[in-house]
Amino acid sequence: MPALPAHLDRDVALARDRANPLRDRRDLFLLPEGTVYLDGNSLGALPRAVPERLQETVTAEWGRDLISSWNTADWINLPRRVGARIGGILGVSGEDVWVSDSTSVSLFKTMVAACRLRPGRRAIVLERATFPTDGYIAASVARMLDLELRWCDSADPVAAIDEDAALVSLTHVDFRTGEMLDLPGVTRAAHDAGALVLWDLCHSTGAVPVDLVGPGVDFAVGCTYKYLNGGPGSPAFMYVAPRLQADLDQPLSGWMGHARPFDMELGYEPVAGVGRLASGTPPVLALSALEAALGVFEGVDPAELRAASLSLTDYFIELVDVRLGGALEVVTPREHARRGSQVSLRHPDAYGIVQALLARRVVGDFRTPDVARFGFAPLYVTHADVYDAVDHLVAVMAEEEFRRPEYATRNVVT
Amino acid sequence: MPALPAHLDRDVALARDRANPLRDRRDLFLLPEGTVYLDGNSLGALPRAVPERLQETVTAEWGRDLISSWNTADWINLPRRVGARIGGILGVSGEDVWVSDSTSVSLFKTMVAACRLRPGRRAIVLERATFPTDGYIAASVARMLDLELRWCDSADPVAAIDEDAALVSLTHVDFRTGEMLDLPGVTRAAHDAGALVLWDLCHSTGAVPVDLVGPGVDFAVGCTYKYLNGGPGSPAFMYVAPRLQADLDQPLSGWMGHARPFDMELGYEPVAGVGRLASGTPPVLALSALEAALGVFEGVDPAELRAASLSLTDYFIELVDVRLGGALEVVTPREHARRGSQVSLRHPDAYGIVQALLARRVVGDFRTPDVARFGFAPLYVTHADVYDAVDHLVAVMAEEEFRRPEYATRNVVT
Repeated sequence: MPALPAHLDRDVALARDRANPLRDRRDLFLLPEGTVYLDGNSLGALPRAVPERLQETVTAEWGRDLISSWNTADWINLPRRVGARIGGILGVSGEDVWVSDSTSVSLFKTMVAACRLRPGRRAIVLERATFPTDGYIAASVARMLDLELRWCDSADPVAAIDEDAALVSLTHVDFRTGEMLDLPGVTRAAHDAGALVLWDLCHSTGAVPVDLVGPGVDFAVGCTYKYLNGGPGSPAFMYVAPRLQADLDQPLSGWMGHARPFDMELGYEPVAGVGRLASGTPPVLALSALEAALGVFEGVDPAELRAASLSLTDYFIELVDVRLGGALEVVTPREHARRGSQVSLRHPDAYGIVQALLARRVVGDFRTPDVARFGFAPLYVTHADVYDAVDHLVAVMAEEEFRRPEYATRNVVT
Repeated sequence: MPALPAHLDRDVALARDRANPLRDRRDLFLLPEGTVYLDGNSLGALPRAVPERLQETVTAEWGRDLISSWNTADWINLPRRVGARIGGILGVSGEDVWVSDSTSVSLFKTMVAACRLRPGRRAIVLERATFPTDGYIAASVARMLDLELRWCDSADPVAAIDEDAALVSLTHVDFRTGEMLDLPGVTRAAHDAGALVLWDLCHSTGAVPVDLVGPGVDFAVGCTYKYLNGGPGSPAFMYVAPRLQADLDQPLSGWMGHARPFDMELGYEPVAGVGRLASGTPPVLALSALEAALGVFEGVDPAELRAASLSLTDYFIELVDVRLGGALEVVTPREHARRGSQVSLRHPDAYGIVQALLARRVVGDFRTPDVARFGFAPLYVTHADVYDAVDHLVAVMAEEEFRRPEYATRNVVT
């Protein structure tokens, strides 16, 4: 094996970690000892503040104060409060973000609302490589509103946008490849054609800052259990541009989106603003955990976050290049402008490679058919983690550990 | 004041509590000392098993095992496992129940699915006194499927059912009055007309046993944070009769309802059975709390549950009659066959009465315009609680405590 260039060695990695202005943030998480966790793009690590807060919500607010907590602990405004915190991370007004339901349900609400704002137009444009749920939900919306589902290619989404498009719904960072789309450019093209845009920020928010206000993005939906560390299955956020809120007409018009829910009126009258995106009673336990979790982002400079993320992915890619010399294909774009916060490696035995790494306590994940994904959550992943992960990967490849018979049968969840 | 008849005094209440075969269940809850909690029909009390279980889910499953817990802690099957437990309480097969989203969202899924099973029929029949969200969601479904929303009267819902009805959607126990509808009778009438039925069991399950299988109920949806004690905003359950599952076609077709979610296919193919009611990633924290909470029902005989509930509401009504002599109108039907597990009292100052009771640590709630509601969760409310609550109510009325100026301004959540 050739000697590792000096600028890639572990001491340099440690020095870079010491120089990282966000280095203290890692202490805000409860990370398992001895594990390199590169799967924060699937499930974020546990922020230290969460267990205590959840205990308080359960034993004091629910157990002791019971129903009074809707007022005294302000449970009723949790979706708004959590939305405001996420607004801060998104760089938008906290008034424009709502958090209540799963990503799939949130996509349905916003997609229908968007299409209703462009009556007469016939198509929803969606990329073929989208995360599946976006496609399934868009198909359902198209069916219910009698629209066409038009697939585009992520290499050139603009080509599919014309005067017939009601909505262009795209993923900012591709879940499989880690490729980042040109959000301002596509948004401009969609607006030029008179269409609205919805950006899926599931693989961006919390690791890849996005300017929504400058390009005038209409809608955004994103996960809170990935880089936002809200906990397994925590509810998604929805952003709606202020200019669209007055006419926002969403289909899951439950009582919590009513202007006066406790007046129990027979007819539905939506409340002003994004609060009309509410449907049922808010999921208090999940929102309470999420509110506590978001504390780790307080005071984080988005530019520093992005710099930390790029430094980690650069280092990972360079180590893979140098130490594995093409044994695994780096799928993720090398240009910063086209890269999210994950690196995907292609190999026919990707599933076994991920399992063998897991046995070595390096956690990435597998995406069918042949991709090993590694996510770099910039608030808790270090350059030393990156060095160690690649070290294990080199060993896995050298010993062909991925061929072990126990990896022939796949887990239910890959 | 006339002497209280001997059979209503507190010693008799205590004796009845001692004779209750479910008397030990109260110890399974963490109830605040010195509070009489008669609002379990709004938010169930905290089961003792929940805090520890949630702590385990957060610190060990999420914090330590991270993404592996989808397999090792079987997070992926939580909706099915929790559904199976609720199936046991409902007296149906655990295979026929799914738990994932709020009541409002669950109503949307099942209402659309039901109407799609009756193509060509034009109306959704719904009672005027329904809980608001049922009406708002039904209106949205009617709009999206181009159907008529037909209001009926709970006194005679059958009169509104004809050959044009696709779906009859009714509430089993009225949230405001506590009146219980004739589920077998209305179901039979709907089926005779060729319509499907959806029963909202929010104010039934966990306190009022219902036979769904005998009458052949098609769909049911119910809350888990009321008498099922799942915690604030815990997800609702959906029941679908087995004969309808193969053709079930619901609109929130997210990736978790796909036959092979981790194959990430472009086209949606629903999984067999009620699992196709899934949309997004399951809310793990809420489901974990709910799973632990449902343990309090293990081995509970539904007949004993109903007997305990009726004994409590009978006693409350009799005490109100005798001690308050008509100062408050008992709105809830006196016939057992028409009564759920709550008693509603009507009074122009109902809001102030509820607030004055709250100050005395007797917790009921107010429903606009003039109803004070008292729920009797049979697993933890005692006859002694009932005696004490009425004792306080007598004092509130005698001193007109409800006129205090601080009750002139209403809380956000009433």
